[in-house]
Amino acid sequence: MMFALPQSVSGQKQNLEDVKAERGLNDADVLGAVKTFMPRGGRDEYFSFVGTGNAGSMIVYGIPSMRIYKYVGVFAPEPWQGYGFDDESMLLLKKGSLDDRINTYGDMRYPALSETDGKYNGKYLFYSDGANSRIALLGLDDFETKQVLQHPLFKSCFAGVAVTPNTEYIIQTSQYPAPWDNKSTDVNSFKSGITFWAFHEPEGKQADGHHVGRIMKDKSFTLELPAFTMGNFDAGKAGSNGLVVGIANKADKYFAYVVDYKKLEGLNTASINDFSVVSLADAVAANAVAFIELAAPAKSAKVTPDGKYFVTASDESLVFDFAKIKQAMSNAGFSGKTDGNIPLIAATDVKHGSIKLGNNVADFTFGFRPNSVYSSVYNDKKIVRWNYETLKQDDDITLTFKPGNIMIPQGLSADPHSNYLTVTDKEGLYKNYPNVGPVRPSFQHLIDISSDDMKDIYTMSLPQANIYGSVAVLRTVIKPIIRYETGTNSRTGEISDYKTVAGQEKIERKGNRVHIFGTMIRSHIVPEIVEVNEGDVVTFHLTNLERAEDETHGFTIDTYGKHGSFEPGKTASLTFTADRSGVFPYYCTEFCSALHLEMEGILLIKPTNYKGPGIGKKTTLTKEELAKYKKNYEDKIKVINATQDVINGVVKWLKENNYQNYHYVNALVEDAFAQLGQAAPVKEKYENYAAKGEWYDAFLWAEQYFQYQVKTADVGLRAKELLSIELQKEEKK
Amino acid sequence: MMFALPQSVSGQKQNLEDVKAERGLNDADVLGAVKTFMPRGGRDEYFSFVGTGNAGSMIVYGIPSMRIYKYVGVFAPEPWQGYGFDDESMLLLKKGSLDDRINTYGDMRYPALSETDGKYNGKYLFYSDGANSRIALLGLDDFETKQVLQHPLFKSCFAGVAVTPNTEYIIQTSQYPAPWDNKSTDVNSFKSGITFWAFHEPEGKQADGHHVGRIMKDKSFTLELPAFTMGNFDAGKAGSNGLVVGIANKADKYFAYVVDYKKLEGLNTASINDFSVVSLADAVAANAVAFIELAAPAKSAKVTPDGKYFVTASDESLVFDFAKIKQAMSNAGFSGKTDGNIPLIAATDVKHGSIKLGNNVADFTFGFRPNSVYSSVYNDKKIVRWNYETLKQDDDITLTFKPGNIMIPQGLSADPHSNYLTVTDKEGLYKNYPNVGPVRPSFQHLIDISSDDMKDIYTMSLPQANIYGSVAVLRTVIKPIIRYETGTNSRTGEISDYKTVAGQEKIERKGNRVHIFGTMIRSHIVPEIVEVNEGDVVTFHLTNLERAEDETHGFTIDTYGKHGSFEPGKTASLTFTADRSGVFPYYCTEFCSALHLEMEGILLIKPTNYKGPGIGKKTTLTKEELAKYKKNYEDKIKVINATQDVINGVVKWLKENNYQNYHYVNALVEDAFAQLGQAAPVKEKYENYAAKGEWYDAFLWAEQYFQYQVKTADVGLRAKELLSIELQKEEKK
Repeated sequence: MMFALPQSVSGQKQNLEDVKAERGLNDADVLGAVKTFMPRGGRDEYFSFVGTGNAGSMIVYGIPSMRIYKYVGVFAPEPWQGYGFDDESMLLLKKGSLDDRINTYGDMRYPALSETDGKYNGKYLFYSDGANSRIALLGLDDFETKQVLQHPLFKSCFAGVAVTPNTEYIIQTSQYPAPWDNKSTDVNSFKSGITFWAFHEPEGKQADGHHVGRIMKDKSFTLELPAFTMGNFDAGKAGSNGLVVGIANKADKYFAYVVDYKKLEGLNTASINDFSVVSLADAVAANAVAFIELAAPAKSAKVTPDGKYFVTASDESLVFDFAKIKQAMSNAGFSGKTDGNIPLIAATDVKHGSIKLGNNVADFTFGFRPNSVYSSVYNDKKIVRWNYETLKQDDDITLTFKPGNIMIPQGLSADPHSNYLTVTDKEGLYKNYPNVGPVRPSFQHLIDISSDDMKDIYTMSLPQANIYGSVAVLRTVIKPIIRYETGTNSRTGEISDYKTVAGQEKIERKGNRVHIFGTMIRSHIVPEIVEVNEGDVVTFHLTNLERAEDETHGFTIDTYGKHGSFEPGKTASLTFTADRSGVFPYYCTEFCSALHLEMEGILLIKPTNYKGPGIGKKTTLTKEELAKYKKNYEDKIKVINATQDVINGVVKWLKENNYQNYHYVNALVEDAFAQLGQAAPVKEKYENYAAKGEWYDAFLWAEQYFQYQVKTADVGLRAKELLSIELQKEEKK
Repeated sequence: MMFALPQSVSGQKQNLEDVKAERGLNDADVLGAVKTFMPRGGRDEYFSFVGTGNAGSMIVYGIPSMRIYKYVGVFAPEPWQGYGFDDESMLLLKKGSLDDRINTYGDMRYPALSETDGKYNGKYLFYSDGANSRIALLGLDDFETKQVLQHPLFKSCFAGVAVTPNTEYIIQTSQYPAPWDNKSTDVNSFKSGITFWAFHEPEGKQADGHHVGRIMKDKSFTLELPAFTMGNFDAGKAGSNGLVVGIANKADKYFAYVVDYKKLEGLNTASINDFSVVSLADAVAANAVAFIELAAPAKSAKVTPDGKYFVTASDESLVFDFAKIKQAMSNAGFSGKTDGNIPLIAATDVKHGSIKLGNNVADFTFGFRPNSVYSSVYNDKKIVRWNYETLKQDDDITLTFKPGNIMIPQGLSADPHSNYLTVTDKEGLYKNYPNVGPVRPSFQHLIDISSDDMKDIYTMSLPQANIYGSVAVLRTVIKPIIRYETGTNSRTGEISDYKTVAGQEKIERKGNRVHIFGTMIRSHIVPEIVEVNEGDVVTFHLTNLERAEDETHGFTIDTYGKHGSFEPGKTASLTFTADRSGVFPYYCTEFCSALHLEMEGILLIKPTNYKGPGIGKKTTLTKEELAKYKKNYEDKIKVINATQDVINGVVKWLKENNYQNYHYVNALVEDAFAQLGQAAPVKEKYENYAAKGEWYDAFLWAEQYFQYQVKTADVGLRAKELLSIELQKEEKK
């Protein structure tokens, strides 16, 4: 399809039929357009999460708008978030590493969401790093990474995870086999394994919407397996709760595996590299592991929403019956053995049935229709819908591309949802998409599966190479917070030891160790001048005092390699050695208000043996300068008084109208007062300086007080606006 | 606006009116939807480029679809591209640094495109790093960063650049003043400056579509200025070619500056930090610099497309006449002096006129209508269109948000274009957009300016915080390449010394220095086993032998921190010290074909004093094994012969139908033969091994030959498909 060049001087068409004609759209295009278009203030039905593959970060996008809302650093640093830059996130990464070797990329494909009773609870998200054998935990309260742990045994992991029905475990497997230590090189020492990472959520800590659950390495364990190449896997649910199933192969032999992890919990463990390992022999003896030999390769194994079966992604897709599998395992109904003495179950003994779907089945997921499976058939360019009970195909759609990974929101939970299916087109060929150089983005199509007639309605680009494997949940299940409690270390959820409030900013020195306890609030960074000596080890501990929504401040020290992001309430620290003397401006890197450019300061690193004056000292003001600052101070006081009148008026009106009965208004008012409360010590300061005739400092602190006041007034006025709307609504009733 | 929960079990509506009703869309929404919807195969009219602020990478998106097509690493590493990971990009970054201190984030806002006669030529793009004082050059042939240079004087740069009309210079200024060395700390040593980075494009090097122009540091120079805080700026064009204008302020005084850089070229320079500096005294003496005092603050100064005027972003926007300015400067028609003896021109002497636009004008750009300016008025929530000749307002639109930065494709070139305008909404408040945690993305609206009645038709999210300042060009002006000449170092554009072709893979050792010359092609990495010793310094030099479109391979060594991206034809190198012994799988990290998972190998790092056998050595095959490999070999030869028959049939058909007359088909056929040509030495190898009865190696190499053959067949069949379509078209005529 070709589009005409823009009509630079004629008017573009302004009615539907003319626009259709001008842009070469047909009726199906129009329907796709209106099914995905999201007007301002609109809300997507689903949040979808997809890893950027080797870029090591996560993308959050909306369905059906297919708009990308956020990037979050996970296995790679994300400078705009300070992730991998501030002390808190560096500590997170170091804690999870085995030897202080922190890799800065990943291989992240199939994420998993935390579950309650097999349904997504919207609290946490987990990722496996296939390249560097790590596991990550993200909190969906603030969309930040909370934990990254290096696997103590595996050299290579499958780039996906599965979660048990109540998030007891996050399951991770090896991919390519390798020895578990760094000394064995014999091919006989190669191993594979399945790890059950224990998850713990402390009770009674989530009252304020913060999720502080963590992976507990010391409660986790690995099941040792012989050297197989391990593929996709899933956890059982409902009747199959306690089992995990997956795909493995070796040479030209293909298997599905079944592991009963409830049985493993009761077995003895050995400690290898300080990690608990269940031996294969013990697992076999306990009938806790069995393999099913497959006649042909399969790409994955996933458990049906009802937990009755698991299904394979293969040209003849197989449906295995957990009831039969359990029976075979409990009766030791095995047909033979494979490597490491693992019992084999004959596929025919435990199969519910199978269905031939086509040539090169790539992936599948489950839908909301009873017992429905949607499978992508790569070579045949189609998606087939079929029924895992009846084993009959009941719909298909032929596509204009070869479909790869497939996803339906909540499709792998106990509660498949949605009229939407997304599917990957990995061949970003120029004939289909614009050319943006030799390496292309990943493309993903949105398929409308609401009716029996599936429709390909939108093409989205995911802007890094090789992105596939996503998970989505109803947006309203996730309850993101708007701000942190003031002084929060967001990586731990605890109040930071370095929390600093207005008026208590200070610089502490002990030998060559310098701690700066600073604050950020529109439109000042306090302190605005910092002097240290060459060679000092310096930490800026900064707290964002804002309570307003989306009022994040950034912080960077020019050319010094440090950057942080300070969301409202967050405290974070930036440590560096002042190994280069000179003058280095620092500033807020996030556009925060019209006075954003005023949020700057100067770091003076005095050269060794430096004897001269510091900068910005105003101890020797001339008479004229003193008079000027006195005038400035007096002018500012007038403005402060006028602003206070505005605030008083707003407060009076709010009280008269019972603002406290309106939840969102009440929150804003509390915010406003919190601001002004923080300002009290500042007021005391400027009054003291004025009393002593120190007009420079009096003016500076009056200016600071005014900043708090303006913000109070701003928030108060917004509260008033909101309350007016509420009152009008009530009047109409 | 509220949306109903998805109708999980009922069918979604399938006609326009029903969908509108269901999704709560009005007629304007429908029009916005169809004006921006891009069906598969469709092409956006414009490519837009925007920096991710402090994340240090660049986003490429399309207008009007607002789909994000690509992320490109610029000032921060981008693991999926190997940028900041492979030796070639690390050398690029190190070459540009002053002291091997490579910062891994940036502050990148206002990019500039390369120009010919003041119009965008689609070849290069430039960025300033405000936080770390760097400048970057990207090639739009392959959308890669080609050069990053540390500024030798400035501690803080304005986060934007301007380009002169024939890309003679890229202009960068300081932002916050600071001393230029690391020893001065006195407030009197603070300076500002304007740097003219010289750009050079070698003649006759661009024949194959590769752009190899570079910034020449030794031909560049800086004009010294007193300590001002410097703001946005622009280069003159047409009649004002040779001038640069910008904004500066100090304390509460606001200025526009005018610098005649043609005059500066003739002046003496001093060398400071090995960089040429024109002294302020010399510039003043040559009448090459003047300031214009402004009555009120301005946010930027930009030159009109005709080069006659420059305009300021200020509540009362000022239009200054270059003819009058030149006259004032040549007649020394000055009204006074400011810091550093800089002559002041009275604004009234050089003003064409002014227009009051509203409260808090944020930004502006030019449109395709004669003499049109579009200004965003933040507090008034409106965009105003006015005429810089008549100084009259002729249209405006009231928005539902406070508009910030504004962009029209080519709006700042000599050739403003397009029916589209984009404008930033920095307040990502929950009432307008979905909540994705405390820090929000940036939002940008697409305004249809085709008719006199401007319309806000689409809201896009830019998924990192604080993104603004973009540039866009007609998509067809950019001519991206599809592949590199085999063996290309993409950062220099030269053929790499480490280029390796099929059959010539090798491992070279000299002391503890090991070079691996390897290749990647579906579906093998050669070599597949590498053995080194603990403590060796190891480099993998890999060449992607593919010629097919979008056939990129990635490469990672598990847990060893190395990752590379190998687009078709690219050679890149990964160097590391093998400081941890053990077995480390390596694999292709980019889904490249159905056999992608076979692209793996093993790095064995032998512990010090290791005496055991290596892995994968097959020198002691048993009789049974030998027989098995002989059988495998013979089976493979049958498949090879059958495949060759297919190829021969396709070739015959292509020749009969004169494929060489069809450009795109011809390119594919050349590709196919290039593949098979590379395979010839491999064929020789397997035949030699077979002759000697070395069946293991014979089979391995026959398998490798088959890989080439399959690719040849694949590309040939695609050529046949394309040619069939062409022939059908001709028949219809």
